[in-house]
Amino acid sequence: MPRPLPHRLLAEYLGSLLLAALVIGSGIAAQRLSPDDVGLQLLENAAATAVGLYAIILVFGPVSGGHFNPAVSIADAVFGGLAWRDVPAYALAQVLGCVTGAVLANVMFEASPVSISTTQRATLAHGVSEVVATVGLLLVIFALVRSGRAALAPSAVGAYIGAAYFFTSSTSFANPAITVGRVFSDTFAGIAPSSVPVYVTAQLVGIAVAIPLLRLLYPTQTTAENAAPVTEGQVR
Amino acid sequence: MPRPLPHRLLAEYLGSLLLAALVIGSGIAAQRLSPDDVGLQLLENAAATAVGLYAIILVFGPVSGGHFNPAVSIADAVFGGLAWRDVPAYALAQVLGCVTGAVLANVMFEASPVSISTTQRATLAHGVSEVVATVGLLLVIFALVRSGRAALAPSAVGAYIGAAYFFTSSTSFANPAITVGRVFSDTFAGIAPSSVPVYVTAQLVGIAVAIPLLRLLYPTQTTAENAAPVTEGQVR
Amino acid sequence: MPRPLPHRLLAEYLGSLLLAALVIGSGIAAQRLSPDDVGLQLLENAAATAVGLYAIILVFGPVSGGHFNPAVSIADAVFGGLAWRDVPAYALAQVLGCVTGAVLANVMFEASPVSISTTQRATLAHGVSEVVATVGLLLVIFALVRSGRAALAPSAVGAYIGAAYFFTSSTSFANPAITVGRVFSDTFAGIAPSSVPVYVTAQLVGIAVAIPLLRLLYPTQTTAENAAPVTEGQVR
Amino acid sequence: MPRPLPHRLLAEYLGSLLLAALVIGSGIAAQRLSPDDVGLQLLENAAATAVGLYAIILVFGPVSGGHFNPAVSIADAVFGGLAWRDVPAYALAQVLGCVTGAVLANVMFEASPVSISTTQRATLAHGVSEVVATVGLLLVIFALVRSGRAALAPSAVGAYIGAAYFFTSSTSFANPAITVGRVFSDTFAGIAPSSVPVYVTAQLVGIAVAIPLLRLLYPTQTTAENAAPVTEGQVR
Repeated sequence: MPRPLPHRLLAEYLGSLLLAALVIGSGIAAQRLSPDDVGLQLLENAAATAVGLYAIILVFGPVSGGHFNPAVSIADAVFGGLAWRDVPAYALAQVLGCVTGAVLANVMFEASPVSISTTQRATLAHGVSEVVATVGLLLVIFALVRSGRAALAPSAVGAYIGAAYFFTSSTSFANPAITVGRVFSDTFAGIAPSSVPVYVTAQLVGIAVAIPLLRLLYPTQTTAENAAPVTEGQVR
Repeated sequence: MPRPLPHRLLAEYLGSLLLAALVIGSGIAAQRLSPDDVGLQLLENAAATAVGLYAIILVFGPVSGGHFNPAVSIADAVFGGLAWRDVPAYALAQVLGCVTGAVLANVMFEASPVSISTTQRATLAHGVSEVVATVGLLLVIFALVRSGRAALAPSAVGAYIGAAYFFTSSTSFANPAITVGRVFSDTFAGIAPSSVPVYVTAQLVGIAVAIPLLRLLYPTQTTAENAAPVTEGQVR
Repeated sequence: MPRPLPHRLLAEYLGSLLLAALVIGSGIAAQRLSPDDVGLQLLENAAATAVGLYAIILVFGPVSGGHFNPAVSIADAVFGGLAWRDVPAYALAQVLGCVTGAVLANVMFEASPVSISTTQRATLAHGVSEVVATVGLLLVIFALVRSGRAALAPSAVGAYIGAAYFFTSSTSFANPAITVGRVFSDTFAGIAPSSVPVYVTAQLVGIAVAIPLLRLLYPTQTTAENAAPVTEGQVR
Repeated sequence: MPRPLPHRLLAEYLGSLLLAALVIGSGIAAQRLSPDDVGLQLLENAAATAVGLYAIILVFGPVSGGHFNPAVSIADAVFGGLAWRDVPAYALAQVLGCVTGAVLANVMFEASPVSISTTQRATLAHGVSEVVATVGLLLVIFALVRSGRAALAPSAVGAYIGAAYFFTSSTSFANPAITVGRVFSDTFAGIAPSSVPVYVTAQLVGIAVAIPLLRLLYPTQTTAENAAPVTEGQVR
C-alpha cells in the first residue's frame, strides 16, 4: 500500500526541485566554463543530468514513485498504478518543485533569482523531437515496470535522458513540469514562455503514442516477485 | 516459450529504429555543436550511443531478445536460440527499422529526410576493424548468455560499443542493419553505399571467427537458474 | 557486530587518503592537460572523481562504512549506526587521511609536497551551494541505508558527486575533511584557508536540514533482509 | 574446480590482446582526432578504457579469472586462488596477448605494425604513481573477492582504472604485461623500453604493499554463498 499522500507529494516536490536545480545549474556551469564549444556544454550538462537523475530517483522512488514528471504520473495512472485522483496533486507538486529548483539554481550561481528565458525553441523539428523523447522515456520506464524490473529504472532513466539530450534536437525535455520550470532561468537550459505550448503538446502526444505501444509489447503486468531473473534485459 | 513472432518483429523494428535515431541523431548534434574537434564529436556520439543502447536493450530485450543486428540474430540461431526460420524476418525488421531511424534523425534535425552519405570508409584497416569489432560484440553477448548472465547484456553491450567507437578505426558499426541504415544520412555517422560491402563482409567474417571461439570458451550452455552467483564476472 | 575500531580507523584513513589523492590529483592533471577550457577541466575532474569514488567506497565500505566524511559519520551516529563515542576518531582519521592524500597528489605530479591554496571561495552563493550539496549527499546515502538498499550506495554516491561538481557553483565539497585536505594543494581543487569556515559551516547546516527530511521520508529503518526487491528504486 | 589450463590461457591471451588493442587503439584515435588538447585525448582514452575493460572482464572472467595482468595473478596466488605453478604460464599468455594487441591496434589504424615507443616515462613521480596505482587496483579486486563480492569486480576495475588514468601522473599502467605491450606502439599510450624497468619495479612494490593491507582489512575469505547481501558496498 502506498505512503500517505502528503509524504508522497513532499517527495515529488523535493525530487522535482533537485531535478530542476541539476538540469539548470549544470547548464549554467557548462555555459560559463566552456564558452567556446556548445557541444561540450551539452556534454557536461547531459553527463551531470544522467548521473544526477540516477541518484535522485533512487532517493525518492520508494516514497512517491520518483516521477518528477506529469507525463509519467499520467501514464502510471493509465496503467493502474497511481490513483487518478492523485494525479493533479502530483502534477502541481512537480511544477512547483521545478520552479523552485530553477530559482535555486539561479541563486547558487549568483544570477538574478528569477529571469524569464528568451530562448525560442518552437520549431516543428523540436516538436517531433519532444514526441520521440517522451515516447522513449515512457517505453523505458513502463517496459521495466510492467516486466518486474522496476529496480533498474533509476539507471535506465538516467542513461536514456543523457542520450536523448544528444539524439534529439530539442535536447529532450520530455517532461511538462521541467518545461515550465526552465522558463524561469534565462540561461543554457531555459525555454521562452512562448515555446512552452509546443513542447507540452508534443509531450502529450508522446503519452498517447507510448500507451498503446506498451500495451502491445507488455500486455500483462509482471511483478518483481514472479519475474524470472532471466527476463531482466535478457538477450533471448 | 517465445512471444508471438509479430510482437517480436515489432520490437526489433522499433528498437532498430531507436538505435539508428540514437546513433545518427547524436552524430548530427555532435557535428553541429562541436565543429572544431572531431575527437570531441566522437566522444559525444559514443557516450550517447553507449548509454542509450543500454536503455533500448532493456526496453525490448524481454520481447524479442533485443538484437537490432542480423549478426546477433545469426549467432543466436547458430547457438540454438532464435529459430533459423525467423532469422530472415528479424533481419528485415532490423534493416527497415534502421532506415526509418535514419530518416527520423534527419527530420528531428531539420535535414533533408533522406540524403545518401558520401563518406567513403572502404579501406583495409576499416575492414580489419569491423572484424575485430564484430568478434568483440559477439563475445560480449554470448559469453554472458552462455554463462547464465544475460541480465548483464544491456550494460555490457552499451559499454563495449562505446569503447569500440574509439578503439577501432571504423568506429565499430559491427551490425549489417545499422550499416545499411547509415547510408541514408549524409552526416557524421553516414557511410557511402560503395563502402557497405566491405563493412558487411567484414562483419560476416567476424561471426565466423566468434562462433568457434565461443564454443571453446563456453562449451556448455548455462541458464540463469543453475548459474552460481559467483560466476557473474568473477575474478577467480 | 562492527569490526575492531583500529581496523575501521585504518580503513577511514586509507579511504580518505585515496579520495583526496583522487580529487586533487585528477584536478592537477586536468588543469595541466586542458589549459584552455575550465569546463573541460571540471568534466575530467568530475568524471574521475565519480568513478573513482565508486571503487573506493566498494573497497572500504564493508570494513568501516566507507564514510571518508565527518558529515556522514555524524548523520550515521544520529540515526543510530556509528556509536557517538567513535565519531571523533572517525573525523580525525578522515582529516588526516585527506591531508596525506593532498600531499601524495602533489608528489605524484612533481609539485611541492605541501602548498597552501590561494583559491578564495567564500561567497554567499558558494555557501548556499554547499548546503544544497551536503543535503543531497546525505539524502542519497541515508535514503538507501534506511530502505535496505545500502548496496547501491557506492554507485549512487559516485554518481551524485559527479553531478554535484557541475550543478553547484562550489563544485560540491560536501565534506569537512576533504575541505581541510584541499587547503594543502595550491592547484585546481584547492581552497584557501580563509574560505574553509564558510564551507564547513554550510556543510553543518546541510546536516541539520537533511536529518529531519530523512526522518520524514524514511520514518522506519528497513534492513536488507526484510526489504522487498521491489523497493529498490521502484517507479511505483 | 577451475577450467583446463589451456582454456584459461587462451582466455588470458585473448583478453590481454583485446585490452591492449583497447588501450592503444583508443589512444591513437584520441591523439589523431583531438590534436589540440591532451586532456581531452586522455579523457577519450580513459573513458574508452573504463567501459571496455568492464566488458572484457565480463567476457573472460568466468573462464580464467579475467586477470590480464601478472600483478593480479601473483596476488591471486598469494591469497590461495591461482595455483603458483600456473602463474608463469598466465604471465606469458598475458604478455604475448598485450604485444599482439599492440600490433593489432597499429594495424587497425594504418600505422606500421610494429613501432618502438620513444615516450620517456622514467621519473620518480611516475614511479610513485605506479606504486599507488597498483596498490589501488589490487585493493579494489581483492577487497571484492575476499568479501564475496567478486561479481562487482568488472565494473569496479573499469571504474578504478578510468579514474587512475587521471589521478596519477603515470596514467596508471598498473600492469607489467600491458607495460611491455605498450612498448610496441610509438603512439599516445606508448612507453620507451628504457622506462619499462621503473614501471615494472614500481608495480612489484605495489604488490608488496597491497598484500599486507588486504590481509589486515579483510582477514578472512568470504565466499559469495555465505556473504550477506548487506555487505556489498554497504555504508554501515
